[in-house]
Amino acid sequence: MTDRLIYLPLGGAGEIGMNAYVYGYGAPGKERLILVDMGVTFPDMDSAPGVEVIMPDMAWLVERVDRLEAIFITHGHEDHIGALGHLWPQLKKPVYARRFTATLGRLKLEEAGLPRDAVTTVEPRPAVIEAGPFKVQFVPLAHSIPESAALVIDTPAGRIVHSGDFKLDRSPVVGEAWDDAAWEALAAEKPVKALMCDSTNVFSTHQGRSEATLAEPLAALIGKAPGMFVATTFGSNVARLKTLAEAAVAADRTVCVMGRSMKRMLAVAQETGVLTQFPRTVTPEEALDVPRRNLMLLVTGSQGERRAAAAALSRGKYLGFEMREGDSFLFSSRTIPGNEKSVIRIWNAFSEMGVTVHDDTDGLYHVSGHANRPDLEHVHRLLLPDMLVPMHGEHRHLKEHVRIATEAGIPGIVATNGMMLDLSGEVPRVVEHIETGRIYLDGTVLIGAMDGVIRDRIRMALNGHALVTVILDEGDQPMGEPWVELSGLTETGLGGRMLNETMEAELGEWMERAGRKVLKDDDKMDEEIRKIVRQVAMEEIGKKPEVTVVLSRLVAE
Amino acid sequence: MTDRLIYLPLGGAGEIGMNAYVYGYGAPGKERLILVDMGVTFPDMDSAPGVEVIMPDMAWLVERVDRLEAIFITHGHEDHIGALGHLWPQLKKPVYARRFTATLGRLKLEEAGLPRDAVTTVEPRPAVIEAGPFKVQFVPLAHSIPESAALVIDTPAGRIVHSGDFKLDRSPVVGEAWDDAAWEALAAEKPVKALMCDSTNVFSTHQGRSEATLAEPLAALIGKAPGMFVATTFGSNVARLKTLAEAAVAADRTVCVMGRSMKRMLAVAQETGVLTQFPRTVTPEEALDVPRRNLMLLVTGSQGERRAAAAALSRGKYLGFEMREGDSFLFSSRTIPGNEKSVIRIWNAFSEMGVTVHDDTDGLYHVSGHANRPDLEHVHRLLLPDMLVPMHGEHRHLKEHVRIATEAGIPGIVATNGMMLDLSGEVPRVVEHIETGRIYLDGTVLIGAMDGVIRDRIRMALNGHALVTVILDEGDQPMGEPWVELSGLTETGLGGRMLNETMEAELGEWMERAGRKVLKDDDKMDEEIRKIVRQVAMEEIGKKPEVTVVLSRLVAE
Repeated sequence: MTDRLIYLPLGGAGEIGMNAYVYGYGAPGKERLILVDMGVTFPDMDSAPGVEVIMPDMAWLVERVDRLEAIFITHGHEDHIGALGHLWPQLKKPVYARRFTATLGRLKLEEAGLPRDAVTTVEPRPAVIEAGPFKVQFVPLAHSIPESAALVIDTPAGRIVHSGDFKLDRSPVVGEAWDDAAWEALAAEKPVKALMCDSTNVFSTHQGRSEATLAEPLAALIGKAPGMFVATTFGSNVARLKTLAEAAVAADRTVCVMGRSMKRMLAVAQETGVLTQFPRTVTPEEALDVPRRNLMLLVTGSQGERRAAAAALSRGKYLGFEMREGDSFLFSSRTIPGNEKSVIRIWNAFSEMGVTVHDDTDGLYHVSGHANRPDLEHVHRLLLPDMLVPMHGEHRHLKEHVRIATEAGIPGIVATNGMMLDLSGEVPRVVEHIETGRIYLDGTVLIGAMDGVIRDRIRMALNGHALVTVILDEGDQPMGEPWVELSGLTETGLGGRMLNETMEAELGEWMERAGRKVLKDDDKMDEEIRKIVRQVAMEEIGKKPEVTVVLSRLVAE
Repeated sequence: MTDRLIYLPLGGAGEIGMNAYVYGYGAPGKERLILVDMGVTFPDMDSAPGVEVIMPDMAWLVERVDRLEAIFITHGHEDHIGALGHLWPQLKKPVYARRFTATLGRLKLEEAGLPRDAVTTVEPRPAVIEAGPFKVQFVPLAHSIPESAALVIDTPAGRIVHSGDFKLDRSPVVGEAWDDAAWEALAAEKPVKALMCDSTNVFSTHQGRSEATLAEPLAALIGKAPGMFVATTFGSNVARLKTLAEAAVAADRTVCVMGRSMKRMLAVAQETGVLTQFPRTVTPEEALDVPRRNLMLLVTGSQGERRAAAAALSRGKYLGFEMREGDSFLFSSRTIPGNEKSVIRIWNAFSEMGVTVHDDTDGLYHVSGHANRPDLEHVHRLLLPDMLVPMHGEHRHLKEHVRIATEAGIPGIVATNGMMLDLSGEVPRVVEHIETGRIYLDGTVLIGAMDGVIRDRIRMALNGHALVTVILDEGDQPMGEPWVELSGLTETGLGGRMLNETMEAELGEWMERAGRKVLKDDDKMDEEIRKIVRQVAMEEIGKKPEVTVVLSRLVAE
């Protein structure tokens, strides 16, 4: 059989989050494979209560791990690197990334007790990593984190450009500027067979703005603020931190960084040489001695995260600091859908303290890290790929991205998680549908999204939980009354009766009537008890709880 | 003591939702009272899982119900009238509203088995309702539901204008147009002592747009759509339904309305004479015979509600209809913060079906029902009140509203739920802080937000639930092994051991070691068992579950 070039997204296609893309080259079923990115996505109370992070199910790849050559990480955002410490043990293959990303990757492996040296630092193009039939180059790109990279993946079937996350920023403050010529050269060197492209901002119809445009408005805002100034952004947005800190210094303010993830990112950026110029910072303790008017705090928690510094400050004292009348707080960020309520809660709490809150409503204090529609179209034109496969987007983003490419004469296809494409021909072709899924990190263990654990949690949260204990003696006769404990349910039902007592009475009556045949039968008992408890609850409080029945049968000793 | 005029928000001030405002006049502590609005707010999984609706706690008012004269409802949105059927029995006072709102109110009472005739229909100003020392007039206003009204509340201490929800719409499609002259006349007739004013859109800095501006873009959009056209908006936005239906007819489409709440609103609007002209509609059954190109469905579910028609269509067949390639779906609505994910889920599902989805991103297909900042400032100028008390807003909205009023020379005060103001003087003055709260309708019963039921549900959802059963004999000796049932927790811990078995083994060992003194002591047993279960869970799976312990002690019979 002829060799083929395949593409298989295991995460990140049809969603924004947990990116993981497989490429393969070889005879069908025997392709040599590489994996690009190992990201996580963040859970919410609606769909995954209590869960730490969500990751792509690697089962397909694990079954074929002998064919996996290497793992490439495009950049250090959690949705691209966050699963490394959790899932690497399933794959145990060399990991390649640029310096900044590689450093973050090593920290993750180290924290998980895994070998740091699994990660190899890669120089950007023209340096080449060979991985089986693949020759991979990292092409520097601007994004909202340092050292993001596109991958140029050369295969016997042609050149693939995997964009990673990027924007066209010609003055990105930190890192390499966008350069039309370099991208033209890349396509001139070897025609691009397929462009796998970031789709996040395909619905944004205006040209994207440069990080550098923020310096002036931020300086103006910070300059005129009367009290303490506190700003939040993603901790990994090192360029933003620099812009904010420089604006602070220009306004005669000393900078103090609060929040573990932000401090870590700054440290890694400095250690790896990504960030060479950054104003002097002081510790929170030192900052307490600085007059408010001369202080700027850079804090974590732009998405309203409960445990981050911004939320902590909104609740009261944090590391000795309290916000007060005349202080300012800035969200130099965009709120990710789903986080609105948490962000607004912080805003209102600050409002109650008399703090002036600013956000990006007027488009002055934040720019996106992703290419907008005109920018995407520009890249399509520069690279002129034979085909476009959009990624890093929900279905609607992918579809819109295909639409604009098709209109420009580039064939495209919407490929969501689990759709394996054959890229060998002139147009992309779906060759297989792989079962993909999600794995949850819950506490310290990995659990399957579909194995019922989380379903039970959601049901308990919606319906409450009734626990029934029944003890039967050696002759299958009830010993004492059945016992009902309620969790997450009101104590009293209709007419102020105790709900558990009403249930106990009904259960007791039923057991008295029930014949020995029923009392002997665990399944039957369980089923009937469950039914009675739910019926009583429905009558008394109008809802049907989850029920757990514990039947204890005493045996002659 | 001198008589005074007081204002006390029990809900709706410091939040958007569950509006309930008390006014009082008389000697301190003996004021005669009226209540304006009885609204609900909607729960979410983060803060109130499983709850139907959230309502203001009326405890303060219930204690003084002998002093309550009447209840006034400004309009028929759920956040103003939704609690009527649930809380009216606590108050049992006459309810006044305009025709459309009164009809909705009667339906609510009827559904709750309460007397319909508690609600009296009121004609608009100059008609006056006397309620103790209060003389109340309903002033028609445009909003996103028919027959919204401001209240003019005349008291011996002066005139209050309670704006209700409103916008300045000079061509509202349905209902009365905004009229500067009428509002000037109102203030000329009697100076306005206090304006209690809607603050929802205080951060929107452009002038609000009229409902009538939508007709043209909607007609253009619907006219050029190739397949079936489906639109969603709030069911109560009767003017929008009319605009959409008329655009459909102009595009040679037959209209079919789907969704109980929307059909009910249309019926009430027609029955009360609010809506006189509305295109002929067909039933879903009849609509099945209409060619797709000639059909328009108006459906409920603009906020992504799981059980509404829009979500049902996004999941597959609904009432015989299936969306398909070439069809269009329009969100003629704004997504309320917190509903983004549900709305986006529907969008993506339609995208997968090949349906073209439109929303209000470009500001063409929806207008807000609330007055924007310039409109609010216009109203301030027309009424020139002695003082402004912003309501219907989160803290940040109220504060901003006070700021703009103060800048224009009108003293204002941020008064949130539970802050009682004395309005008798020249400036508003806080005289008391009342404990307010939230009541949940859970199933069919009312429960307090703070009584622990919901807290337990949230904890079970986050941490899972472990149930431990221990049976002790007459001599306080364990009978058999302790039994552990897990809900919402993974079955296996470290090394693939069954988690419940590990717990049972640890508990069993501990009970063997425990002295009789401990085994006799229920509290001690409970505490120790709980501790052991949580310790084992922490070691095995890295999280601490909620624990319920059932100790059964057999007694000699």
